[in-house]
Amino acid sequence: MPTKKPLIGAAIVGQSGGPSSVINASAYGVIKTALEDENITKVYGAEHGIVGVLEDRLMIMDEEDPAELERLLYTPSSALGSCRYKIADPSDNDKDYKRILEIFEKYNVRYFFYIGGNDSMDTCAKISRYMAKVGYECRVIGVPKTIDNDLIGTDHCPGFASAAKYIATSVMEVARDCRVYNKGMITIIECMGRHAGWLTAATVLPAAKGDGPDLIYLPEVDFDMADFLDDVIRVYEGQGQCLVAVSEGIHYSDGAFVSEAKTSSTDGFGHAQLGGLAHRLAGIVSAATGAKVRGIELSLLQRCAAHCASATDIEEAFQCGKVAVESALRGETGKMVGMVCKRDGGYSVSYELFDLRRVANAEKKIPLEWITSDNAYVTDAFIDYCTPLLEGQTALGYEDGLPRFARLKKVFAK
Amino acid sequence: MPTKKPLIGAAIVGQSGGPSSVINASAYGVIKTALEDENITKVYGAEHGIVGVLEDRLMIMDEEDPAELERLLYTPSSALGSCRYKIADPSDNDKDYKRILEIFEKYNVRYFFYIGGNDSMDTCAKISRYMAKVGYECRVIGVPKTIDNDLIGTDHCPGFASAAKYIATSVMEVARDCRVYNKGMITIIECMGRHAGWLTAATVLPAAKGDGPDLIYLPEVDFDMADFLDDVIRVYEGQGQCLVAVSEGIHYSDGAFVSEAKTSSTDGFGHAQLGGLAHRLAGIVSAATGAKVRGIELSLLQRCAAHCASATDIEEAFQCGKVAVESALRGETGKMVGMVCKRDGGYSVSYELFDLRRVANAEKKIPLEWITSDNAYVTDAFIDYCTPLLEGQTALGYEDGLPRFARLKKVFAK
Repeated sequence: MPTKKPLIGAAIVGQSGGPSSVINASAYGVIKTALEDENITKVYGAEHGIVGVLEDRLMIMDEEDPAELERLLYTPSSALGSCRYKIADPSDNDKDYKRILEIFEKYNVRYFFYIGGNDSMDTCAKISRYMAKVGYECRVIGVPKTIDNDLIGTDHCPGFASAAKYIATSVMEVARDCRVYNKGMITIIECMGRHAGWLTAATVLPAAKGDGPDLIYLPEVDFDMADFLDDVIRVYEGQGQCLVAVSEGIHYSDGAFVSEAKTSSTDGFGHAQLGGLAHRLAGIVSAATGAKVRGIELSLLQRCAAHCASATDIEEAFQCGKVAVESALRGETGKMVGMVCKRDGGYSVSYELFDLRRVANAEKKIPLEWITSDNAYVTDAFIDYCTPLLEGQTALGYEDGLPRFARLKKVFAK
Repeated sequence: MPTKKPLIGAAIVGQSGGPSSVINASAYGVIKTALEDENITKVYGAEHGIVGVLEDRLMIMDEEDPAELERLLYTPSSALGSCRYKIADPSDNDKDYKRILEIFEKYNVRYFFYIGGNDSMDTCAKISRYMAKVGYECRVIGVPKTIDNDLIGTDHCPGFASAAKYIATSVMEVARDCRVYNKGMITIIECMGRHAGWLTAATVLPAAKGDGPDLIYLPEVDFDMADFLDDVIRVYEGQGQCLVAVSEGIHYSDGAFVSEAKTSSTDGFGHAQLGGLAHRLAGIVSAATGAKVRGIELSLLQRCAAHCASATDIEEAFQCGKVAVESALRGETGKMVGMVCKRDGGYSVSYELFDLRRVANAEKKIPLEWITSDNAYVTDAFIDYCTPLLEGQTALGYEDGLPRFARLKKVFAK
């Protein structure tokens, strides 16, 4: 762990990729810690992530009302704006890097903090290497964010727990709703997750309270439509209703997503789907059973439902941002902040640094041994892993009965 | 207002129709008040509404843990079970009524409280008239419940405000999410409401905070696809993104629902829709603009999201149940409890009784003068009407980071 002298200069913080309920809590962790440090002369927020650096669109965080900045803890989505800009490899094309260097020099930027998922960590790693190569002294630290929970190294990712809490809460409520009638119903709930089933697995959490799904299908294993229909029919015939959770990324053994699979004579569909996977499966189950079937897609709601955020997640997201700044101040660069957790004898977390090159471009999936042998449920190991992360409710304020989210002035540097 | 002596005997409470976040708060208002009154000898909950009476499935509320009963204030869906059973007109077929009388006599039932919407009030009215006709002394009071807010007489319905709060909160969060990128997106959010647009109109509430939709389409007025596309394209071209709220019940001038309208060459679809209206419109807008378009259906979530309930709604739902019992004890029958509200100089509510026959089989829609002349937004009059109803957050308890809903023992009478 290097302990160098802090650099004197400005800091930039940017947000990238899909928003989450707590990506602003991480931004606040960076901004507050940077504003309070005497070595950091100015704190800029890049509008739309790295695009804001390239386009010289930097918001001066020193100009914002501290009370509004604090509301970032409870404000969903990316308050600074986000992007999905994929930066080139500097050996292929260094145009973007030259421009970034130009901006860094213009504002004497010595600290760059980037909050995001795999791609953002890749961006961080490339910028860090480029600046080292050209001899521009600058410290680059990544702050993890993804509701998908698929970053390696860290125990879990800020953003995941709040999405999981929203999903588990919604499943509890829908379970109570769809089981209320004397006539049965089959309900299929679709959660996000193209390659990793963490969010869908979280639907199991209310099961201990009697409000969980009967069946859970994840993208970590191959999906078989005949087995699926057998499972659903067995549950429906046994208890008069059935609640199913599916990940958007479930796929057949040939790798084709069920949501996008070609027409087949067995599924009864001869046209492209406009609705998502839940609607598609609902149609198939309805045709196979004649039962009343409803598909529910949690859609964007699951990644922005800050009103249902986990207090644990908010605190951890904030700390990741704070630790990023503290680490950079003592000389670290080219790293991502991550969490190492203990669950025996109570949950505890410590913040450590991971090499960005190790994190970028890799995906963490649910261990196969956490999925039951019928591929239609998850084990207690997942429940033990996930439960402590949901603890505590947000301290979000309200105004006129609605959330009071942060309102930034957005004063741009010239 | 009659002031008769209370009858000595048992009470039945039932829940009917679609669940809401606070229908159990009304049940608790009835149950608690009835349990505490010395004239009411026993309190039964009918399983699945009137079906539970017909099938002699009555749960003894006196046997429940009072602490669990109190959790009904914060528990979504119908804890006693619901039904959609349409009772015959007694002049056509009095079989059901004879059976109800038989059960009432078996358990010496002198009070019947039924919580529900239009159809439930109709059931109440018929039972009340039948009992009077056959000379069985019994007091029947309806308790309003519908997220659709379409019952006449009462200022608004318990259940509406919590659904509206959830919808407005979700729209705020989605607005922040879908406006986050540097590349624009069109987002279409579908809310419940086949004939009345109250819930969809509630999406306007965050507008004052900058997080509302750009366009709102309600079933009170005819929908025109060409106008709709013009509106969306104008907003999208002007500000690079567009957020639209639509009611599931929007319809063309010939009365056909847009969600179910036949194939037309203009909309590019040659097949039945599996997804709902939001997905259908998303497909049409995408084809017309080439933009990235996302359809979001709030589905069941909006009627069961107790974690986001309005404290005002919970309290009013409870009071409606309480007032129902108090009114019956002093001799009222054949009435529905309703609310009369004042909004000048602060919001206040008083509880009054409405004739069941006046309420049953009528629908209250949004006044046309509350809809803007372009048929694509609502006026401040709606905002003034709706805002006070959302005030306050639920006091729902949590366990393992998830809601702690009521768990009833369900001991059945024999």
